[in-house]
Amino acid sequence: MNDPSILDQVIEQFTQVDGLRIMVHGGGNKASELSKRLGIQPKMVKGRRITDNSTLELVTMVYAGLVNKNLVARLQAKGSNAIGLSGADGNVIPAKKRPVKEIDYGFAGDLEDSAPVSETLEILLNSGLVPVCCPITHDGQGQLLNTNADTIASHLGVTLSRKFDVTLVYCLDKPGVMLNPEKSDSVVGQIDPAYYQELITNGVIVDGMIPKLDNAFAGLRLGISEIYLCDWQDITGSSGTKITLR
Amino acid sequence: MNDPSILDQVIEQFTQVDGLRIMVHGGGNKASELSKRLGIQPKMVKGRRITDNSTLELVTMVYAGLVNKNLVARLQAKGSNAIGLSGADGNVIPAKKRPVKEIDYGFAGDLEDSAPVSETLEILLNSGLVPVCCPITHDGQGQLLNTNADTIASHLGVTLSRKFDVTLVYCLDKPGVMLNPEKSDSVVGQIDPAYYQELITNGVIVDGMIPKLDNAFAGLRLGISEIYLCDWQDITGSSGTKITLR
Repeated sequence: MNDPSILDQVIEQFTQVDGLRIMVHGGGNKASELSKRLGIQPKMVKGRRITDNSTLELVTMVYAGLVNKNLVARLQAKGSNAIGLSGADGNVIPAKKRPVKEIDYGFAGDLEDSAPVSETLEILLNSGLVPVCCPITHDGQGQLLNTNADTIASHLGVTLSRKFDVTLVYCLDKPGVMLNPEKSDSVVGQIDPAYYQELITNGVIVDGMIPKLDNAFAGLRLGISEIYLCDWQDITGSSGTKITLR
Repeated sequence: MNDPSILDQVIEQFTQVDGLRIMVHGGGNKASELSKRLGIQPKMVKGRRITDNSTLELVTMVYAGLVNKNLVARLQAKGSNAIGLSGADGNVIPAKKRPVKEIDYGFAGDLEDSAPVSETLEILLNSGLVPVCCPITHDGQGQLLNTNADTIASHLGVTLSRKFDVTLVYCLDKPGVMLNPEKSDSVVGQIDPAYYQELITNGVIVDGMIPKLDNAFAGLRLGISEIYLCDWQDITGSSGTKITLR
């Protein structure tokens, strides 16, 4: 999403998706860039990233400001009536500060998938607006929190599935789950839980893809109708990997 | 607004204002602070501030991200269903890049007060949401623009006055227009255009207050019902200066 010409293609495709639409974005690269310029060292404890106060300010600026508003402006230019949101706006994504156990994650926000559908989101969607959600949430007591973008996407999918038929598409930097990362034609068309275990055992699915797929399976179990993993060249998901419960 | 305890008092008062409400904010101090940390020199031409690309990125981060989302979270904590907006969001404030004449102001956005009322703003207000607007606009072609916060406030007041009865309150760092800046009890209760000229001639109204008051008189002429200048200790305006056409 850092390459403007790719971004334009994604946005072009997004505007053509049928039905009500929500975009969820991150902004990790831009945040790392600004972090370096400001001399803010990423704070790590036992290999986990901690959201201290400086980091929270940084991601609030980058995710909710720079990235969100540029996406909104570009979507507007393509005829989508986009409206940028953090979880604090209209209280669309209430969160809880992660409890301090072995690790104090700082201002990390955890979500409750049993939360009711956001009334504000319903109003916006039913008014023809296109919500563009950044991964900043709040605790309802005035404190902003940092939440993983995949978690936001899945949470919105799950809560909205109580009132809407939801398709969730994760847009990756590769065309889906691949048997051989070197071969673009090795995309796995469909993965169910049994095949997922096999692919983990074989070492095909590793690292960051594991929480993403765990999230996906959980999302399906909690009510999302369809979930796809795909790249920016086809965000409909049809050429990517479909995640299914069986 | 940089002092959290003052900010809380302003927000407390704001939540108690009757009727539909919109907050418009700037964020100049925070922007200058970040500007220094990033080593971005304010670009000036003939004494006028220019919004170059780095400055636009900076103000988008600070105004639309850091300041806007913190205000929204604090308003939410006080029971106001706040929703943060730039002019790009829901296309609430379309702007035009200022034409290059003697000076190229860069990404400065000019507003058209004859623009129709924003449909999105109407939907939000009628849904009980409380818009919190930052001074970032867009040109509808994907370009974000930087617009003065006073101009935004007056523009929203004027356009909304076609459908609502609008009171506009400018919140200053002093209790209103003062005959003697050293004496807090020297606040002028009311100013009409004739008295305004007199106060300019006497040197009571100078510098940044002149464009603010010019804006205010223009706003009244274009349909705003009441305009006040006051400080944060009484944002109802009743202890401040009322601007009137006669």
